Amino acid sequence: MSGKIRIGIIGYGNLGRGVESAIMQNEDLELVAVFSRRDPSTVTLLDDRVKVVSISETLNYKSEIDVMILCGGSATDLPEQGPEFAAHFNTIDSFDTHAKIPDYFAVMDEVAKSSGKTSIISVGWDPGMFSMNRLLGEAILPVGETYTFWGKGLSQGHSDAVRRVDGVKAGVQYTLPMEEAVNRVRNGENPELSTKEKHLRQCYIVPEADADLGEIEQTIKTMPHYFADYQTEVHFITEEELVANHSKMMHGGFVIRSGETGNGNNQIVEYSLKLDSNPEYTASVLTAYARAAYKMNKEGSAGAKTAFDVPIGLLSPKSPAQLRKELL
Amino acid sequence: MSGKIRIGIIGYGNLGRGVESAIMQNEDLELVAVFSRRDPSTVTLLDDRVKVVSISETLNYKSEIDVMILCGGSATDLPEQGPEFAAHFNTIDSFDTHAKIPDYFAVMDEVAKSSGKTSIISVGWDPGMFSMNRLLGEAILPVGETYTFWGKGLSQGHSDAVRRVDGVKAGVQYTLPMEEAVNRVRNGENPELSTKEKHLRQCYIVPEADADLGEIEQTIKTMPHYFADYQTEVHFITEEELVANHSKMMHGGFVIRSGETGNGNNQIVEYSLKLDSNPEYTASVLTAYARAAYKMNKEGSAGAKTAFDVPIGLLSPKSPAQLRKELL
Repeated sequence: MSGKIRIGIIGYGNLGRGVESAIMQNEDLELVAVFSRRDPSTVTLLDDRVKVVSISETLNYKSEIDVMILCGGSATDLPEQGPEFAAHFNTIDSFDTHAKIPDYFAVMDEVAKSSGKTSIISVGWDPGMFSMNRLLGEAILPVGETYTFWGKGLSQGHSDAVRRVDGVKAGVQYTLPMEEAVNRVRNGENPELSTKEKHLRQCYIVPEADADLGEIEQTIKTMPHYFADYQTEVHFITEEELVANHSKMMHGGFVIRSGETGNGNNQIVEYSLKLDSNPEYTASVLTAYARAAYKMNKEGSAGAKTAFDVPIGLLSPKSPAQLRKELL
Repeated sequence: MSGKIRIGIIGYGNLGRGVESAIMQNEDLELVAVFSRRDPSTVTLLDDRVKVVSISETLNYKSEIDVMILCGGSATDLPEQGPEFAAHFNTIDSFDTHAKIPDYFAVMDEVAKSSGKTSIISVGWDPGMFSMNRLLGEAILPVGETYTFWGKGLSQGHSDAVRRVDGVKAGVQYTLPMEEAVNRVRNGENPELSTKEKHLRQCYIVPEADADLGEIEQTIKTMPHYFADYQTEVHFITEEELVANHSKMMHGGFVIRSGETGNGNNQIVEYSLKLDSNPEYTASVLTAYARAAYKMNKEGSAGAKTAFDVPIGLLSPKSPAQLRKELL
């Protein structure tokens, strides 16, 4: 018994590795094992003293793990793994298919309530920190507008889309907030803005040697759903530039509440993120919530929870008295 | 029975008036009465249908008020009124003497636990929203630095100080974050900065007709504690300019967490406020927390709480299911 909160990780992609890395920064947390669908002998962790175990053996670790952090994707992994593991473990996940959150919550709540476990779902930055700021914004300033901007950030889906274009050897796509739109919001103008009026799409493309650059640009800019409705920039670069300048999974964005109180007083609240590594930040949020799940379960609060249900003091390793003294 | 949460206000200064105004923006809240030390006939509310009652009669309203919002000051009012009213009502206050919060919490917790009431203390933006962001910053990014900057904002204490200088007819003082310091922090440089290296003091002075401007400027800039250690600007203006441009109780500031994850990835999180009216924003926060105190008390959670103990979903009039669907 180390006295630490004992963590397991399910799934070892970018997010799982980020969680491993985050646990190393928190002295009150201990990583017991990583569970993977791959052959454990092929999985190399950052810390080779930690066990890699086949996901099929997860239930053998019921008494050794306090909180399981689920690092799979929202499309197919979590809808299965969430309920499967909530039946046996306290869990944390980053389920981020916004439209399906109510259904996912209902399933997780039912399973976790009957297993007596605590499952905090949809944790990260959006959903997660951004959601909290959207909620605080409208609860505190009920007269006003909320704006969410994303970027500057690497968009995985759109990067995949540009890479499928004929003549494209490699490439990435960034989503950027439109500066003019941001400034109007920050000035309290409360403009009506659609997602495409708020964001610019920027592509950095490495063309094949013989490619027709004009055709690539044209194909990207007119691609339905992905680019056609957006202001889109296409920049051609070399493979070396791509590796040197576009390898980070950067992301970010901001939530702005522009409200009015009293006799026409503008009140602007902004929460912003500028992340060198999107998966590592998400992983750091998941890791802090593991602490909260552990404490809530100890207090007998079983079932599914979201960031809206968790007192934020539980995210800290410090005692309530210490938090009041040092941080309030 | 209106089905609304019934609120009382103790103390009707800028903050109390802000709370009255905020309640008008929230359909699930109802202002029952304002309690004042002044002769009630001399107190004019924004809504003249609401009763003004002598503070000595407050206990007659025990069955008519669900939550009492205490709008007195931290120096002398709240240390007395907090425990006095927590013995009979759920309360909200903005106690902001940071160093005395632990003691105040202890007293309030004891009183509220024995009365079975819920008292949420030290609510507002600092302490309050800023504190929450300081906590989230270090819990999520344990390797890093937290910076709090205040301003641009009107400082009451420093404005009083410049008005006491010989030859000064009227004046105000603003605290501003130093742009260079802010930029270094936003760039992830993690500089070591004292409060005075982070802030600039800007004075707008209306001189008496025959005053020696050089002497006024010298007296202000060398005033110990208030200005001597700071970079201070003194601007002379007319009385008309003062009224036209410097009548708002504006304030704001930001909390920045500059953290590092993984292999040297910078992660910058910033929460910022730009407030036309400091008291009205604080009042809006207090008002949202009244809802939380009411719900927590219904759930049997008695005693003193801070923003760290309150799940933020309780601040919203919306149901948990609605919040998950609309805001997560």
